[in-house]
Amino acid sequence: MGASNVSHKLIRSHLVKGQMVPGEEIALRIDQTLTQDATGTLVMLELEAMGLDRVRTELSAQYVDHNIVQEDFKNADDHLFLRSACQRFGLYYSRPGNGVSHPVHQECFGKPGKTLLGSDSHTPAAGAIGMLAMGAGGLEVAMAMAGEPYHLVMPKIWGIRLVGELPDWVSAKDVILELLRRHGVRGGVGRILEYHGPGLAQLQTMDRHVLANMGTELGATTTVFPADEEVRRYLRSQGREQDYTELLPDPGASYDVEEEIDLSRLEPLTALPSSPGNVVPVSEVAGRPIYQAYIGSSANPGYRDLAVVAEIVKGRTAHDRVSFDVNPTTRQILARLIADGHLVSLTAAGARLHQTGCNGCIGMGQAPATDRISLRTVPRNFPGRSGTREDQVYLVSPETAAASALKGEITDPRTLKFPYPKVREPYDGLGRMELITPPLPPEEARKAELVRGPNIKSLPELGPLPASLSVPVLLKVGDDLTTDEILPAGTRVLPYRSNIPKISEFSFEQVDPTYAARAMKVRDDGGHVVIGGSNYGQGSSREHAALAPRYLGLRAVIAKSFARIHSQNLVNFGIAPLTFVDPGDYDAVSKGDTLSIDLDGLESGKHLQARADGRSFFVTHSLSPRQVEILRKGGLINWMKERLGPGAGQKVER
Amino acid sequence: MGASNVSHKLIRSHLVKGQMVPGEEIALRIDQTLTQDATGTLVMLELEAMGLDRVRTELSAQYVDHNIVQEDFKNADDHLFLRSACQRFGLYYSRPGNGVSHPVHQECFGKPGKTLLGSDSHTPAAGAIGMLAMGAGGLEVAMAMAGEPYHLVMPKIWGIRLVGELPDWVSAKDVILELLRRHGVRGGVGRILEYHGPGLAQLQTMDRHVLANMGTELGATTTVFPADEEVRRYLRSQGREQDYTELLPDPGASYDVEEEIDLSRLEPLTALPSSPGNVVPVSEVAGRPIYQAYIGSSANPGYRDLAVVAEIVKGRTAHDRVSFDVNPTTRQILARLIADGHLVSLTAAGARLHQTGCNGCIGMGQAPATDRISLRTVPRNFPGRSGTREDQVYLVSPETAAASALKGEITDPRTLKFPYPKVREPYDGLGRMELITPPLPPEEARKAELVRGPNIKSLPELGPLPASLSVPVLLKVGDDLTTDEILPAGTRVLPYRSNIPKISEFSFEQVDPTYAARAMKVRDDGGHVVIGGSNYGQGSSREHAALAPRYLGLRAVIAKSFARIHSQNLVNFGIAPLTFVDPGDYDAVSKGDTLSIDLDGLESGKHLQARADGRSFFVTHSLSPRQVEILRKGGLINWMKERLGPGAGQKVER
Repeated sequence: MGASNVSHKLIRSHLVKGQMVPGEEIALRIDQTLTQDATGTLVMLELEAMGLDRVRTELSAQYVDHNIVQEDFKNADDHLFLRSACQRFGLYYSRPGNGVSHPVHQECFGKPGKTLLGSDSHTPAAGAIGMLAMGAGGLEVAMAMAGEPYHLVMPKIWGIRLVGELPDWVSAKDVILELLRRHGVRGGVGRILEYHGPGLAQLQTMDRHVLANMGTELGATTTVFPADEEVRRYLRSQGREQDYTELLPDPGASYDVEEEIDLSRLEPLTALPSSPGNVVPVSEVAGRPIYQAYIGSSANPGYRDLAVVAEIVKGRTAHDRVSFDVNPTTRQILARLIADGHLVSLTAAGARLHQTGCNGCIGMGQAPATDRISLRTVPRNFPGRSGTREDQVYLVSPETAAASALKGEITDPRTLKFPYPKVREPYDGLGRMELITPPLPPEEARKAELVRGPNIKSLPELGPLPASLSVPVLLKVGDDLTTDEILPAGTRVLPYRSNIPKISEFSFEQVDPTYAARAMKVRDDGGHVVIGGSNYGQGSSREHAALAPRYLGLRAVIAKSFARIHSQNLVNFGIAPLTFVDPGDYDAVSKGDTLSIDLDGLESGKHLQARADGRSFFVTHSLSPRQVEILRKGGLINWMKERLGPGAGQKVER
Repeated sequence: MGASNVSHKLIRSHLVKGQMVPGEEIALRIDQTLTQDATGTLVMLELEAMGLDRVRTELSAQYVDHNIVQEDFKNADDHLFLRSACQRFGLYYSRPGNGVSHPVHQECFGKPGKTLLGSDSHTPAAGAIGMLAMGAGGLEVAMAMAGEPYHLVMPKIWGIRLVGELPDWVSAKDVILELLRRHGVRGGVGRILEYHGPGLAQLQTMDRHVLANMGTELGATTTVFPADEEVRRYLRSQGREQDYTELLPDPGASYDVEEEIDLSRLEPLTALPSSPGNVVPVSEVAGRPIYQAYIGSSANPGYRDLAVVAEIVKGRTAHDRVSFDVNPTTRQILARLIADGHLVSLTAAGARLHQTGCNGCIGMGQAPATDRISLRTVPRNFPGRSGTREDQVYLVSPETAAASALKGEITDPRTLKFPYPKVREPYDGLGRMELITPPLPPEEARKAELVRGPNIKSLPELGPLPASLSVPVLLKVGDDLTTDEILPAGTRVLPYRSNIPKISEFSFEQVDPTYAARAMKVRDDGGHVVIGGSNYGQGSSREHAALAPRYLGLRAVIAKSFARIHSQNLVNFGIAPLTFVDPGDYDAVSKGDTLSIDLDGLESGKHLQARADGRSFFVTHSLSPRQVEILRKGGLINWMKERLGPGAGQKVER
């Protein structure tokens, strides 16, 4: 096989299906999973619906870091539900206050050489210590918890060779901003970023974590670093040196794509509103007045990232117009910042100290004022993500944020009149401080009951696909229908993500507000179908856009074509995604028609005859035999329930 | 005059009108004002509308402590508006992160012997250092800022003599809970609580602050403590010993009402849901499982209140079901907790450390789970105030909250198996840490411009009351109409409190959703009147229930009778509150009638003849000559604008 890079070693050691040829589908064994609270409640409901007794990974951990403002009962109910689900299914539970999932997971559980699947797009951060860590949808993570391999397309490996030394006032954030400057937000699609070269030595583990986290903003499958002596030092500081395994590229290893960054030539960079790809030097926009300097988040989560800010503002005062928001990322880091005096420096300088967690990075508080600039050390500045519509969020390093907080305007930190306070992770630390509740032993776990607030409902049981359909067409839509139109997001709808009966009431609301009520009327008489145009289901990957209409009785969508992810989601929840053989037949079907179709031919892949209001036409599909099998059983949860065998699938409320 | 108590000394030295006879109206000179952000924005708009050039108090300070979650632009816009208004009108500005107004004000500005009027019901807390500190509505605070005296009914002085020493595990919170246990939430109405006696010596200033804060929960006008050597020590620790003035009761001073508390006989107490008056011993309810232990708020704001919790949980761990929420109250206290190692103890024990401010105490986050018990050191447990409807909030001391966090159930702290960690305020402190921006010099202030986000609108200009009305009756309502029905609260409406044109759209919405639109149609043709039954305008004192309908053209309300506060609010915004001479004439007027009335007789107080749809009847009023004068001018803002003279009252947008 020749000299291997780190990515290939990680993939090869977990490969259960397919060939390591870029573009081909492969399947990997998953060692660990990570879920956070915003996605985790649905994952737990999926485990319940499958009838899983206990997670089958080496380790699964549930974090609470997103929904921690608690404006009403719903967040708190979710936390208690997740705690009970961890007890029931054998997961580690990280209580609110422990901090952001990615750094906490790395501190407590990260192991070089292992795979990690997480229902959060920044899961790749654990690549910092030589893990193969990937983000995925909630149901895919649930399947991994149930012991199923994870399917993906074999990516190209993008070797990024680091040379030179970072200048003063320039740090890891500027390195990843440089990559975004060069390649934009689609530059990493279909690729794993693998860092190597002599420049690596100066990057401590949490610096690498910054780069691995924001590889996601390039669209990459994940980011991988070697597990070297630096990672050993990091794990030793966590009291887990025994979890260290060296994982280096073989001498002479090559990469599918090669690139070099000379760190010594970098300068402070910023991503302008409203994309991580809009990168320019800070000096180009210096002088613009700011409202906010926001420190923290998964993108700059390290002790160093906060301590360097403390050193910069020590004995100084933030401008009184500036909201100087400091968000410690983990309990361990918070405690260390306190012990080292940094928290006094920050507080005395005017910081608003917030609870550990994701907070303003995902729009949970700390929204900026109208038309005012907010400098943030976060990974993303998508429009409105801060909570303020048409916001002006700039992504920056901690150094740039701190300098700007002092001046009240965007400031290149190299213009400060004092020496750069170079801070490194101490590694002589307080040790682990996270309060993680371990799984219960199996016998106790089986007795644990799920604790459900009024807004948390068991997933509805979904029956198998019938052999034939003869049901009404309740809706006919045009081309490019988005999943936002199928099921909206926003504060009115999102709180019901764990309550399928309730959230289903919003299905297709923007297209036809009468749909949900009409669907409920015929749900128990066999359901209904929807007719779509081209590119049906484009946009967000949200699973609810399949599950909610399915709850209302949607059995098939016949469209000119489908968006890829939504088509898979339809299959996963037992809805047949069928296409017109002749797109012209779209015009032959109308809302209100009774559509009849014999589904016997699904397995053979041949054309199926359909009839609507007397007219006859042909439909087909592009499903694999495995997908047809899942569809027949009424979706992935039923399919998995069968694989888990007797005892699984206890009766749940509809 | 004989021997004076402290309350009488404070009143006498500020009396500008009336006699110190309980029940008679008096007026007092106001030395200082305090506003917080939730009420302050409207106050600043009122100053603008009056045309005030600069505050005329000795000192006025604006705090930002309530609306600091910042889910969208509105909170942040408010903060920038308040900062600009402080620059314009000559106030001190306390930026977000400095903490809760009451302890911060006391630290930075509190002076024995002075009066303080604040647009927050817990303003009396400053009574801890011998101030006469009272809560009032926003417009009354605005008038005080403009140099007007504050009118109130002379209260009875309630002398509370403290004897004995507090047992271990019992603290100031239990003392005020004992008073609430004895007298309930109306026990202090029309009274000033004045503490004295040998038991005082052991109560440090911030313990007294706890008692003074929660005097409000007894309905008291305010609470007063002497300024003694303990207060001198407190002020010295703030670097302000020069602000100390001794203020003691004269030997042999007496009180209108006398009572004694033997501190040595107290035990840990708790107020059960959902009133501060439902007090029982903690031991009676021990063992109930809890979801939350909430530390902080204006009711237990002292360093001691947080440090004692840290000492109790040090080296131990909060139950993993318990949300152990720690809310430092001021920047100074936070810094000291850090410096003394207490914050590490709290963090290591599982605390969720929140930003300094009011936070969950006023329902801004930290809401408890459904049907779960929340123990809180806050002043109030009104139903739903936590953010969760039908919540289960128990008021407790810091000691009880900490003990219960460890056990996961309500716990009498005396049952803990270790010695009581008695903590006292150190008074050798870090000194003041608050970052307060001082007022600009007058010439610079005049150039300052108000910074207005899209949701902050100048108050509309309100014309004088015409000599006669001939306008339609747009609404006729029944008895006991509440101000909630006139203008609702809630998340849909509250965000528009600084936007009168917008908030007016919700006027009378629950009674008649067409009212606002109908009113706008005739607004510029002379406006309209509303007919009411008995007790019109009962309930909340919100000023918007007068201002919003006035904006829509309401010129008079004719009712069988009025609730007292709303009647005053109507006058304050230029709406005539008139009563039927014969309540039977209520039936003579219908919605849609044109009502004509000659208002010439208002000054003489005689009956005024009114005609509606041909029928004639008499109305009258109970206004003082001063109130009639205010009404004639179109309300208090116009009245004040005239007093402030030329240069005031610059044109503002309608």
